[in-house]
Amino acid sequence: MKIAILPGDGIGPEIVTQAVKVLNALGEKFEMETAPVGGAGYEASGHPLPEATLKLAKDADAVLFGAVGDWKYDTLDRPLRPEQAILGLRKNLGLFGNLRPAILYPELAGASTLKPEVVSGLDILIVRELTGDIYFGQPRGVRECPDGPFKGQREGFDTMRYAEGEIRRIAHVAFQAAQKRDKRLTSVDKANVLETFQFWKDIVTDVHKEYPDVALDHMYVDNAAMQLVRAPKKFDVIVTGNMFGDILSDAAAMLTGSIGMLPSASLDANNKGLYEPSHGSAPDIAGKGIANPLATILSAAMMLRYSLNKVEQADRIEAAVKKVLAQGLRTGDIYEEGTTKVGTEEMGNAVVKAL
Amino acid sequence: MKIAILPGDGIGPEIVTQAVKVLNALGEKFEMETAPVGGAGYEASGHPLPEATLKLAKDADAVLFGAVGDWKYDTLDRPLRPEQAILGLRKNLGLFGNLRPAILYPELAGASTLKPEVVSGLDILIVRELTGDIYFGQPRGVRECPDGPFKGQREGFDTMRYAEGEIRRIAHVAFQAAQKRDKRLTSVDKANVLETFQFWKDIVTDVHKEYPDVALDHMYVDNAAMQLVRAPKKFDVIVTGNMFGDILSDAAAMLTGSIGMLPSASLDANNKGLYEPSHGSAPDIAGKGIANPLATILSAAMMLRYSLNKVEQADRIEAAVKKVLAQGLRTGDIYEEGTTKVGTEEMGNAVVKAL
Ligand SMILES: CC(C)[C@H](C(=O)O)[C@@H](O)C(=O)O
Ligand SMILES: CC(C)[C@H](C(=O)O)[C@@H](O)C(=O)O
Repeated sequence: MKIAILPGDGIGPEIVTQAVKVLNALGEKFEMETAPVGGAGYEASGHPLPEATLKLAKDADAVLFGAVGDWKYDTLDRPLRPEQAILGLRKNLGLFGNLRPAILYPELAGASTLKPEVVSGLDILIVRELTGDIYFGQPRGVRECPDGPFKGQREGFDTMRYAEGEIRRIAHVAFQAAQKRDKRLTSVDKANVLETFQFWKDIVTDVHKEYPDVALDHMYVDNAAMQLVRAPKKFDVIVTGNMFGDILSDAAAMLTGSIGMLPSASLDANNKGLYEPSHGSAPDIAGKGIANPLATILSAAMMLRYSLNKVEQADRIEAAVKKVLAQGLRTGDIYEEGTTKVGTEEMGNAVVKAL
Repeated sequence: MKIAILPGDGIGPEIVTQAVKVLNALGEKFEMETAPVGGAGYEASGHPLPEATLKLAKDADAVLFGAVGDWKYDTLDRPLRPEQAILGLRKNLGLFGNLRPAILYPELAGASTLKPEVVSGLDILIVRELTGDIYFGQPRGVRECPDGPFKGQREGFDTMRYAEGEIRRIAHVAFQAAQKRDKRLTSVDKANVLETFQFWKDIVTDVHKEYPDVALDHMYVDNAAMQLVRAPKKFDVIVTGNMFGDILSDAAAMLTGSIGMLPSASLDANNKGLYEPSHGSAPDIAGKGIANPLATILSAAMMLRYSLNKVEQADRIEAAVKKVLAQGLRTGDIYEEGTTKVGTEEMGNAVVKAL
């Protein structure tokens, strides 16, 4: 089994190193190959997603991704900026199904900005469509405003769109995920304003017929943002489009107060996937050896579970992470008085030991 | 001075009654005329925004709006649903500048789901553009997918767009609001993905030249959603587009835990405005006399301040609301042990008395 390792920028390389170490400690044979991506890709070959990196990712059974981005690339033209690599990988690999769990480990309940009773035991899964919507819709650009009171001025514009098949396949992913959990799915839309999301709602409602064991409800995106703050534990699985999913999954992650703990998976139609921590490249702490590697280690566990069919090994990693938390080990981002502060490498070593 | 009173549906009529009572108690002469809107408009004349209601709103100096919507209208065609009235009013009256304060009154700090230290003293202002963006952009609809892997299938689609002048005028509103506050403005965009919002960012940056005394920063919408949960007090004024503003202003309102307290203003280019509570029509508690009228009463205060140029009277109302809170009076939504639970009318009477 071949894994493409794309460490990226900022803290990416440090945290990926720990995840690779954990994978190697499982006693399985993985073929791993590393390639530059993001700012590192740009430095190496003038493009955030070098041809060779894309090819490696395409040929692999799964991709383990660190993080991309650094302020020093802010002045580059948009197509050359690090985050274009992640958009390019999603699109080229057809990774339409993004799974983003927001889980609050009991040991870390204090890290949340929300009251413990509101978030303790939080365990929700956000299923975000990842290759459609206004992220990729054409036409887009800056043009002369064609009509209305601003006619003749310049205007920026984009196209939001979802085709029936695109909605169906992400709905299936979400219903099936709900079946393995508490069997409750909330589809988030803005059907009261957007044609795209009235259509979305209609299609999700239709797909629901195939999953009578799952309870489906529909919620407007503004209300969903409120309910995530008000009573997040009421959700089980949330499914939504690319743009709303971007916003809601980050909000949900932050509810836990420990975004350094949250993995993510981005899957294609055959469960090939890209796995990355939910947090960013944190260039301000890069190279200091203090970043939390657990989100990346847990992303490796998701990779074993979803793409490599090694469920038992995934369980082992997740159990090991729980164990180091129970031992009181914490990186700086989740440190609290009475626990033991450790660095990136120590944390990785502790997980290996706990395996 | 003429005020159009549009009570709407659900709890709308009850809460507007209290706000009207408070206005009448100021000892000023206002000409007020009432008209049906939303579901009530549909019942009265087959359309959520009857011609006569729109005319009244257009002719008035300001509009006091309750809330619209009820489940019983869910099955109507979209153009007939209650919320179309609010979209129609915004568009027809040119109410492009939506001001949504998120303020946490010290007495109500306990109502928030966030820890007191994270939210106590919260006072942020969200400036949301209200007549542009994907809410009104054309073309939109359901069509045959023109290209790509889903070619030939049906697809829903919408157009996001912002013209230069549209961005400039809302940026001016936001910079001027920031000048009257802590002189910090955060412009929220998704410039890393959307052409519309790269353009937005460029124009806001340009308008900033006219406001050198205001500190401007730019934040991606996903990050803004996170920072609102993580450290909301770091914001002063936020400016953003219609769609992102819809989501973020509701999330920000919910941070306070007391959305029944939050007013809003929607202004045109001449400071004529529509004023409404930030909460909805709550059909489940309509007619029970338990709804919180304070958001509507505070909306009336905003109306005096922004549209009717009665700043002193606005101050009086706001002071009266603070006084009833200090007296320990609470409607059910903000009730806590040790305070006195009152109904909608009692609360309105208490504000009148405190004036
Ligand atoms: C970097 C950016 C393009 C990306 C997105 O908006 O999808 C990121 O925010 C994410 O959620 O992975
Ligand atoms: C009712 C709906 C159309 C409206 C909106 O999306 O603008 C509401 O959510 C609001 O924020 O006033």
